[in-house]
Amino acid sequence: MPQAAEGCARAGIGWIGVWRDRLAEVGTTSGARAIRDAGLRVSGLCRGGWFGAADAVTRRANMDDNRLAVDQAAELGALVLVLVCGPAPNRNLVAARDYVADCVVELCEYGAERGVKIGIEPLHPMYCGDRSVVVTLDQALAMTQGLAPARAGVVVDTYHVWWDPSVVEKIRACGPKIAGFHLADWLVPTPDMLNGRGMLGDGVVDMRSLREAVDGAGYDGPIEVELFNPDIWAIPGDDCLRLIKERYSAHVLSGAQP
Amino acid sequence: MPQAAEGCARAGIGWIGVWRDRLAEVGTTSGARAIRDAGLRVSGLCRGGWFGAADAVTRRANMDDNRLAVDQAAELGALVLVLVCGPAPNRNLVAARDYVADCVVELCEYGAERGVKIGIEPLHPMYCGDRSVVVTLDQALAMTQGLAPARAGVVVDTYHVWWDPSVVEKIRACGPKIAGFHLADWLVPTPDMLNGRGMLGDGVVDMRSLREAVDGAGYDGPIEVELFNPDIWAIPGDDCLRLIKERYSAHVLSGAQP
Repeated sequence: MPQAAEGCARAGIGWIGVWRDRLAEVGTTSGARAIRDAGLRVSGLCRGGWFGAADAVTRRANMDDNRLAVDQAAELGALVLVLVCGPAPNRNLVAARDYVADCVVELCEYGAERGVKIGIEPLHPMYCGDRSVVVTLDQALAMTQGLAPARAGVVVDTYHVWWDPSVVEKIRACGPKIAGFHLADWLVPTPDMLNGRGMLGDGVVDMRSLREAVDGAGYDGPIEVELFNPDIWAIPGDDCLRLIKERYSAHVLSGAQP
Repeated sequence: MPQAAEGCARAGIGWIGVWRDRLAEVGTTSGARAIRDAGLRVSGLCRGGWFGAADAVTRRANMDDNRLAVDQAAELGALVLVLVCGPAPNRNLVAARDYVADCVVELCEYGAERGVKIGIEPLHPMYCGDRSVVVTLDQALAMTQGLAPARAGVVVDTYHVWWDPSVVEKIRACGPKIAGFHLADWLVPTPDMLNGRGMLGDGVVDMRSLREAVDGAGYDGPIEVELFNPDIWAIPGDDCLRLIKERYSAHVLSGAQP
């Protein structure tokens, strides 16, 4: 993670999105220091969530881990703690979704104490069975109802939402609740359901129209490029960041936007 | 296909869903005869659709093939010709979806001449890049607006729609427009994006609640079990049909329903 932070700084990128497994390798305090020393700020911390479980002991442990994630986000000064909401412990999706909604409210109370905003990221519906019962933007937005935009919001990821026939309307409806914006392209064919995400421009997603929708909804925070793909991970870091910046300019920038 | 028809008859199943590639192996006329001779009726013919293309010549050829599919459905006496609507020829999903909607209207006119109902099957959003720009029930239903239920409808497939947070409401909204009901389970993990469909009960889908939603919407036509999976295809036919019937009783039947 310190290497990634230094690479971003060399590439003129002012923000970094942090994953907790990588943060754990160096520890929160020294990770936070490495990022500060590189002159960066933390756009988001991934991931909290994964609340559900078949038994009460595990559910309680899951909530404890989410409080820890809030603490880590506070120490990093992350703009948002991103939630991936986990699968249902049985075939009852309705109950699993209700449980997530309750947990979001509970976690937001703790986030408010620590000054950490909670962001619910709907995942692509192909993850509904094993990673997230939250699969659409309107569903995520509904879970933040009654919570202030400074406390809770929705994270828009192009990879997860591009297929939605009403994605533009749903992004608009999120408005001030947009708490983050992630980019990845959808490759055809998809090489892997988890780690098959595409470099910007290599796939079929109209990234610019989604960027314009998010802009139009009023979001002006950092934009994260999030590419789970071993072929991309194998590219030397500085080369990879250069490629990402080129592709971002070609496929995401619109008009005079930064 | 004649073997499958005879197997269904032996198993006491009165209907069969036909795929055009299998029909082509024996020819439409002799295929239709084999099914009639076995005492079966054809629930649906798969598949028409796949309208879009980058060039006008291919688009015209695609529509010609759809007319041929209507003719085949008429000869088989199929209750519905199922459309899989194909991917976008470029990154413009909005244009691709508009084109599909226009083609559905055009094909329905021909279907009306031949007495064949057209059924739009929304596919799972993970196929949006390569198989179907139609990915939700409400989107499919909107494409049938202004077309009589006897002429055009929506095919509900549990595998494609189970993840949708408002699937029950969307099924209810389809009402008399439900033109078919397909069953497959979602396996965790999914072994293959195309041919990884699960035997009823082996996955995470609450099949019974979806059956009840379709019943509640007023659908009383045949129910197709549609399992793309080489492990299932490897089971000897009679054994496979016996297993399907057992699983159907255990996971789909509800109360006194047949």
